[in-house]
Amino acid sequence: MKIADFLEADRAVMEGALEKILPPDGTPPLTIHRAMRYSVFAGGKRVRPILCYETARMFGKNPEGAVRVAGALELIHTYSLIHDDLPALDNDDLRRGKPTNHKMFGDAMAILAGDALLTLAFETLANAPIEPARRVRIIAEVAAAAGTVNGMVGGQVADVEASGKSIDGTTLEYIHRSKTAALIRGAIVAGAIAGGATDADVERLRVFGENIGWAFQVVDDILDVSEPSSALGKTAGKDQSQQKATYPALYGIEKSRQIAAELETAALKQLDHYGARGARLRALASYLVERRS
Amino acid sequence: MKIADFLEADRAVMEGALEKILPPDGTPPLTIHRAMRYSVFAGGKRVRPILCYETARMFGKNPEGAVRVAGALELIHTYSLIHDDLPALDNDDLRRGKPTNHKMFGDAMAILAGDALLTLAFETLANAPIEPARRVRIIAEVAAAAGTVNGMVGGQVADVEASGKSIDGTTLEYIHRSKTAALIRGAIVAGAIAGGATDADVERLRVFGENIGWAFQVVDDILDVSEPSSALGKTAGKDQSQQKATYPALYGIEKSRQIAAELETAALKQLDHYGARGARLRALASYLVERRS
Repeated sequence: MKIADFLEADRAVMEGALEKILPPDGTPPLTIHRAMRYSVFAGGKRVRPILCYETARMFGKNPEGAVRVAGALELIHTYSLIHDDLPALDNDDLRRGKPTNHKMFGDAMAILAGDALLTLAFETLANAPIEPARRVRIIAEVAAAAGTVNGMVGGQVADVEASGKSIDGTTLEYIHRSKTAALIRGAIVAGAIAGGATDADVERLRVFGENIGWAFQVVDDILDVSEPSSALGKTAGKDQSQQKATYPALYGIEKSRQIAAELETAALKQLDHYGARGARLRALASYLVERRS
Repeated sequence: MKIADFLEADRAVMEGALEKILPPDGTPPLTIHRAMRYSVFAGGKRVRPILCYETARMFGKNPEGAVRVAGALELIHTYSLIHDDLPALDNDDLRRGKPTNHKMFGDAMAILAGDALLTLAFETLANAPIEPARRVRIIAEVAAAAGTVNGMVGGQVADVEASGKSIDGTTLEYIHRSKTAALIRGAIVAGAIAGGATDADVERLRVFGENIGWAFQVVDDILDVSEPSSALGKTAGKDQSQQKATYPALYGIEKSRQIAAELETAALKQLDHYGARGARLRALASYLVERRS
């Protein structure tokens, strides 16, 4: 199974889902909906929703429900990028090759657009066509993954606080696992629950998600120093100029590549249980670790 | 029934609930949890959670579940205040007589603390001890009330956009009903669902909540011009200096007082159905309209 066999089709499914979830252009108040749509449709790779969707498909039940959950995950990811790019945080002008949300709509609207996307994500999850007992489990998992205790916001805080300081491997691991791996793991776990997975399956997919999410961020660090801005669609070398805590800075590029490969192996091991049914997730995992942008 | 008979006891219940919901001091990352706790425990009146809790008590079932929902509502209210006070929005230095969150912790941490409280609110709702089918309804109601389409963020956007402009009564009504009434209505509806209300009860309480929430904001406008900063715990006259759209600015104080009284009457009418069981909600409603701070 090659990623090219299904990635574009999956992306089209995700675009369709997001189009249904976001209030259409022209819904008042006009500006906030324009700002929300601007960042959601700015050309993201849809990594989290596709992982969510493909995990659900592996268990085979209720793809309609999983598509809604996948869309909600992308809204949370987008909100985190909008807030992260603000002048008070990373102060980024460019994202996916386009002006960041606050450069287009101003700081106030960017703050509110992020808030609104996070809120809409939970509204979407609450209304997803999935049996209520599974729906509340999904919401709890996603909220924890996006939160402060070993979750995304906790990772962002630790990242902000580590800037310009010399940190050790333990802190760096905490930042990467919280800031990035948690939401990717959350997307995969949510997909498993939506798809009707047993508790044992959910725990297996949790380990898969944690490792592949962590590898994803290590690779992101590597690309920031090894690829030009034109390939990344964002300012390359930014980590270094902002004195961010990264794997290449702490371990060098070669050792970082090795760490990413080991995490990929640990992730893929969890899929052995599923044989051929795991082919798409296996292809996705490899794509995420071997990508160039 | 007088408000003094139960208000302090209810507040103590809410403080206890919030104490259980917020990660304790010393939970890493330290700063974000300190920032979250700072604003949650800065002396709010707990209007929304008490309305939620007392609505649930009127229907008599599952007070434990309602207490968790009530706490989540207060987290959402607190997040909205933190973000609203930011320099990019209202740029307020003082809230409840204390420095605002960003004055204490910086803009970055205040943005993240707001994000974290919103996320924690949904995690709390998702884990509340309420049957799953009611739990997902509560989450959907609360998220819609906090969102952009006739919800809290929509109201904030319209408020920001109306600043300094001359607006009509229709726009002012939209701002107040979205910015303030929606979440108060959401708190009351959520309490009704948590307490085991029938659909007909939920709709009655929805009308009660909408009217009392709207009245609450009209009274807020009036107090801003009629009471000193010392009574309000925030900068009095701020609406006027920021050229905010308010009822007194559009209709004058006397007419505004009359509008608030009419809304209160419309709200109380919904409680007739409940006779003596509605005594506490009736007392709360009158307290909210007749308050001086």
